Amino acid sequence: MKIDGRHYRTLWVAADGWTVEVIDQTLLPHRLEIVRLATVDQAAEAIRHMTVRGAPLIGVTAAYGLALAMRADPSDRALREAAQTLGATRPTAVNLRAAIDAMSAELSRVDPERRASMAYANAGRLADDDVATSRAIAEHGLPLIRKSRAGAGPVNVLTHCNAGWLATIDWGTALAPVYLAHERGLDVHVWVDETRPRNQGAALTAWELGKAGVAHTLVVDNAGGHLMQHGLVDLCIVGTDRTTAGGDVANKIGTYLKALAARDNDVPFYVAAPSSSIDWAIEHGASVPIEERQGEEVSHVTGEADDGRSARVRVTPRGTPVKNYAFDVTPGRLVTAIVTERGVCAASREGLQSLFPEHANQRPS
Amino acid sequence: MKIDGRHYRTLWVAADGWTVEVIDQTLLPHRLEIVRLATVDQAAEAIRHMTVRGAPLIGVTAAYGLALAMRADPSDRALREAAQTLGATRPTAVNLRAAIDAMSAELSRVDPERRASMAYANAGRLADDDVATSRAIAEHGLPLIRKSRAGAGPVNVLTHCNAGWLATIDWGTALAPVYLAHERGLDVHVWVDETRPRNQGAALTAWELGKAGVAHTLVVDNAGGHLMQHGLVDLCIVGTDRTTAGGDVANKIGTYLKALAARDNDVPFYVAAPSSSIDWAIEHGASVPIEERQGEEVSHVTGEADDGRSARVRVTPRGTPVKNYAFDVTPGRLVTAIVTERGVCAASREGLQSLFPEHANQRPS
Repeated sequence: MKIDGRHYRTLWVAADGWTVEVIDQTLLPHRLEIVRLATVDQAAEAIRHMTVRGAPLIGVTAAYGLALAMRADPSDRALREAAQTLGATRPTAVNLRAAIDAMSAELSRVDPERRASMAYANAGRLADDDVATSRAIAEHGLPLIRKSRAGAGPVNVLTHCNAGWLATIDWGTALAPVYLAHERGLDVHVWVDETRPRNQGAALTAWELGKAGVAHTLVVDNAGGHLMQHGLVDLCIVGTDRTTAGGDVANKIGTYLKALAARDNDVPFYVAAPSSSIDWAIEHGASVPIEERQGEEVSHVTGEADDGRSARVRVTPRGTPVKNYAFDVTPGRLVTAIVTERGVCAASREGLQSLFPEHANQRPS
Repeated sequence: MKIDGRHYRTLWVAADGWTVEVIDQTLLPHRLEIVRLATVDQAAEAIRHMTVRGAPLIGVTAAYGLALAMRADPSDRALREAAQTLGATRPTAVNLRAAIDAMSAELSRVDPERRASMAYANAGRLADDDVATSRAIAEHGLPLIRKSRAGAGPVNVLTHCNAGWLATIDWGTALAPVYLAHERGLDVHVWVDETRPRNQGAALTAWELGKAGVAHTLVVDNAGGHLMQHGLVDLCIVGTDRTTAGGDVANKIGTYLKALAARDNDVPFYVAAPSSSIDWAIEHGASVPIEERQGEEVSHVTGEADDGRSARVRVTPRGTPVKNYAFDVTPGRLVTAIVTERGVCAASREGLQSLFPEHANQRPS
């Protein structure tokens, strides 16, 4: 997507042909800075620290992390250690694990001297596939936006967290159909949930929609129910970090509350799920590991002070105990449909298998 | 309640016998400062600026605002103007309007020279009544906490916003039964919703529970559904800014989402409602005016910087459009019961009238 007229992806191989450059998402929306990753440890730290985030993007970043590792040392042991380091960064998104497992398996089958070039090629393919997937989700999601038009005025879309182009390599998942709608001249307006505690909505979604010229309004996470009660939301679209084979959706904490409100007010609730985020080995959402992060993400807020400098403030009393669950699970029964790169389906085993029949025989372990 | 061993109310008449002193709630939890109100305009500003907040407390503050006005000028015109100034501060809580209307009517019937002393007496009675009401809510709510005990370990209560003693003159509404349970030796733990955008949970509820020695854990507003899905909440108790005659509950934005999650997970959802917050003139929640506040409350966060000074940071891109709805309405169908100073009842016209039969003939306008 474009930032001030120039096209960007969230991640690319640098001019030197081997280091990887990413947009530092912890500094947005206040500063656009590019970070260079030259080692597998730097790639792992970028994922853990959320320099890059979003299930599709961390999957591709992990793939490049393996490539960086293989360039430094293509031994079996280095491959194993790199896979372990990268896999331990964040537990909920399945893309990460899937990308690492698939690439590790392939790399381990070839001679060490071929591994680095193969890893770069694979990672590059993964990145390009991700863009194609997002673009296909845009095409399949667009009719859902069109048909949700309730009357005069814009189609009002509510989204939670950031499942825009910053969460992927380009285009996004949940926001991909919105960008396409905007490109095609449809009048669309997005309610952006702030998405506590890391404010991905307030910081990232608001920023990328603003750069793309898409009408949007920021609200606190608490406001979605009120908006839906008052007919101000035509449809919800969110992303997913892991969708189970049975159609349950692990996504940013708070997604479940919005799905409940959508159901209570007859608002369609869609999940944009690239197949890379479907975990065919798990049937029910209760089996998805839910990441817990540091309490400081809740007790402290970082932003730009009035003097333009970055600053951090504590909102709570000193020492207040905090729990910081990063994701929750929305049961498939609350999801109107899942939008994948192959089309739209019901949030159920039958629905998902109708689009991905090659997984029909894969039973949950 | 006690702060570091010393008993405080949120508001009292100063040693001079006429000015009113209040705890400045905009500075908590970082600093405990007392603000003196000497004019009706200062009282109105304290309500508008949320130096004082919470439906019961702003009702009493408005009553003292009228007393301050009458002391300065007891004319009919001054009374009318004071009522108007105070009534225009915040639209959703009904206590404010009710206190002003009742006192204005009484004052207008007596000679101007008697008005100031009568106003102080009435405001003082209102404050004492509020304490007695909170204490009665504590007694009626306590059995609900006792019976919610699911097994070993503490009873886990989830609350939203601040309906503790800071929202009233003393004791609180939703938290009053919690304080009584704690006093009686019951093992109780409170999940505190941060309550964006003004963080009354993170700043005020966490602070007062900490000072009282009640176990508590702060979570983001997004987390309540996840907690309930995992059996970590035995009951929810919230306050209310206005409860309609039909049992719908206007309360801090986001309350509705928690009520939906409670219903979806069979968790009891209680509303602590002093009768002063019941609006017998409105049947349905859709008729409650919902206050909209400044967007800066969402885009900016104020807290304590690492150097101990108060600081404000912007989280969003500059100029991001924001909507800031302060309240939402939870339909009575989602409320397990309402706890009033006269007992516990169903969230319906029949339920409320069973406790307040004197309003049986009052039909919504």
